[in-house]
Amino acid sequence: MGEFELIQRFFTRAQRPAARGVALGIGDDCALLQPTPGMQMAVSCDMLVAGRHFFADTSPRALGHKALAVNLSDLAACGAHPLGFTLALALPEANAAWLEPFSQGLLALADAHGCELVGGDTTQGPLNICITVFGEVPPGQALLRSGAHAGDDIYVSGSLGDARLALEALQGKLVLPDAVLAQARQRLEQPTPRVGLGLALRGIASACADISDGLLGDLGHILERSGVGATLQTALAIHLIAACAHPAWSSALFGTENGSTQRLQCVLAGGDDYELVFTAPVNQRAAVQAASFSSSTPVTRIGQIDGHAGLRLVDGDGASVANTFASFDHFASAVGH
Amino acid sequence: MGEFELIQRFFTRAQRPAARGVALGIGDDCALLQPTPGMQMAVSCDMLVAGRHFFADTSPRALGHKALAVNLSDLAACGAHPLGFTLALALPEANAAWLEPFSQGLLALADAHGCELVGGDTTQGPLNICITVFGEVPPGQALLRSGAHAGDDIYVSGSLGDARLALEALQGKLVLPDAVLAQARQRLEQPTPRVGLGLALRGIASACADISDGLLGDLGHILERSGVGATLQTALAIHLIAACAHPAWSSALFGTENGSTQRLQCVLAGGDDYELVFTAPVNQRAAVQAASFSSSTPVTRIGQIDGHAGLRLVDGDGASVANTFASFDHFASAVGH
Repeated sequence: MGEFELIQRFFTRAQRPAARGVALGIGDDCALLQPTPGMQMAVSCDMLVAGRHFFADTSPRALGHKALAVNLSDLAACGAHPLGFTLALALPEANAAWLEPFSQGLLALADAHGCELVGGDTTQGPLNICITVFGEVPPGQALLRSGAHAGDDIYVSGSLGDARLALEALQGKLVLPDAVLAQARQRLEQPTPRVGLGLALRGIASACADISDGLLGDLGHILERSGVGATLQTALAIHLIAACAHPAWSSALFGTENGSTQRLQCVLAGGDDYELVFTAPVNQRAAVQAASFSSSTPVTRIGQIDGHAGLRLVDGDGASVANTFASFDHFASAVGH
Repeated sequence: MGEFELIQRFFTRAQRPAARGVALGIGDDCALLQPTPGMQMAVSCDMLVAGRHFFADTSPRALGHKALAVNLSDLAACGAHPLGFTLALALPEANAAWLEPFSQGLLALADAHGCELVGGDTTQGPLNICITVFGEVPPGQALLRSGAHAGDDIYVSGSLGDARLALEALQGKLVLPDAVLAQARQRLEQPTPRVGLGLALRGIASACADISDGLLGDLGHILERSGVGATLQTALAIHLIAACAHPAWSSALFGTENGSTQRLQCVLAGGDDYELVFTAPVNQRAAVQAASFSSSTPVTRIGQIDGHAGLRLVDGDGASVANTFASFDHFASAVGH
């Protein structure tokens, strides 16, 4: 199968009504996007490499989903409305049995967000998936990392830590009951980009980032860019790991002192969650709840921004918790992120 | 060196005046582009893989140049004005001795075109360079592959075939004098994107594509999308290989019958030239010459569009030339494109 047949067979859709914002799709030297007049274009790019960001035997359908999800998550963090994306794909071989489910997983998520595949590139090479995504946002309304102020609340969406838990189980570092592994693995392999929540938080959140490298690392980016510090409640954060809600094993795995540390490690520095961490003024609490409801996305308040540089962890009694949790670095860590 | 230090050290520029069209650059979840109101955004994406698109020992400075050049060439083919690009980079290791010249080659070409690096991704993995480039073009003025009509002239810019000649020499398939290899290798490793010509051809050319896979293949895309055929003058095309102008070796290498075939193979199907092939109505001949002059880009008329499907080659006497020239396919061919 040659390059053109591959594109035609798996990535060219049947004639569809012109997608919002797309004047010309696949098939020319460039795609042409027509943003709504006056809007800014939000652009983000992520590259996934076999053996580093995913296991080589990951289901191709899940991989297609995840490759786009991690990019949509960046648009979500920015409060941008998805328009389209390009896909560059290096493959060891043009294998239809892999390409078909991969393209299905990819395009199903694209369709769910009205985000059109507008172009790209395919080549032979070690498996590598690079997506660049485009969205639009009214000027001045993008959610940035730089807007947090002392006194603002800190929130996270959804659940944190399950992706890391699944990773450790798949690496043989811990054993999970099958049902729990299946749930956690779903979070690792098919994360949910919080696009609706990001859009709903425009004008409400003061700063926002998505959590790809771990909560502490990504919140750290907000603190650094905003020139502020923060205090996090570990007694609240520790409940964010969804797998712990599972009655079959929570206490068995995490009942001990070491278990609590491991659980916090997953939540605070696990990575690959693709939830949003954001800040908002205290007087926006009702508005944050309304955004959570309107986007059907759970939101948990876990701390507060303050004027002292750095990030402090405190337990339920306000006592300091040592921060020994390391975030993910793409040049230092193992497979999975 | 971690991911953030790598980006900071090699890809973050000193404070500069805000680039045209860039509202927010590197450092947040998304970059924000602000297109000129009403303009369309042209988007293209190319992925370069070590061992397939370039030799592993290619000079990193040349590679930085080429990775952006092949993308700017797509904007040129579309008649779009470059605004910015994202860079995703998988590297076996964060090696400063490689990254420094790579980033210099990349950013020098970016600066020459006022095209800002707005974001991207870096990760550990087999060497892979993926760039997505953004430009703008007034609605309805983009040069497309689909606009050629019977009777239009066919032109190519610059020279064709030298990149392939260099590739064959580097692969040991033929021997070139040092001076000739140096000249041809420059074309292979540091192609010149024809951005100025593409802009000058707006409103003049009826169809346009850049030549990455070889003249016959890329002209073939124009014919297919436009629903037309063409006749090419091989006696004109054969002169397009610049290395043949070199007195030291032209006749020695290409004097024989086999030499002529090899020379035509380089010109017609060589690939990696990053010149433009375009069509224009006969009454635009003076305007095409003016565009060539204003952009300081040589242009050669080599054939004509007609209504008969397919591509015919004829020699100087109008006699048919057998088309045995195969174009490049990224799932079938060797290193070099």
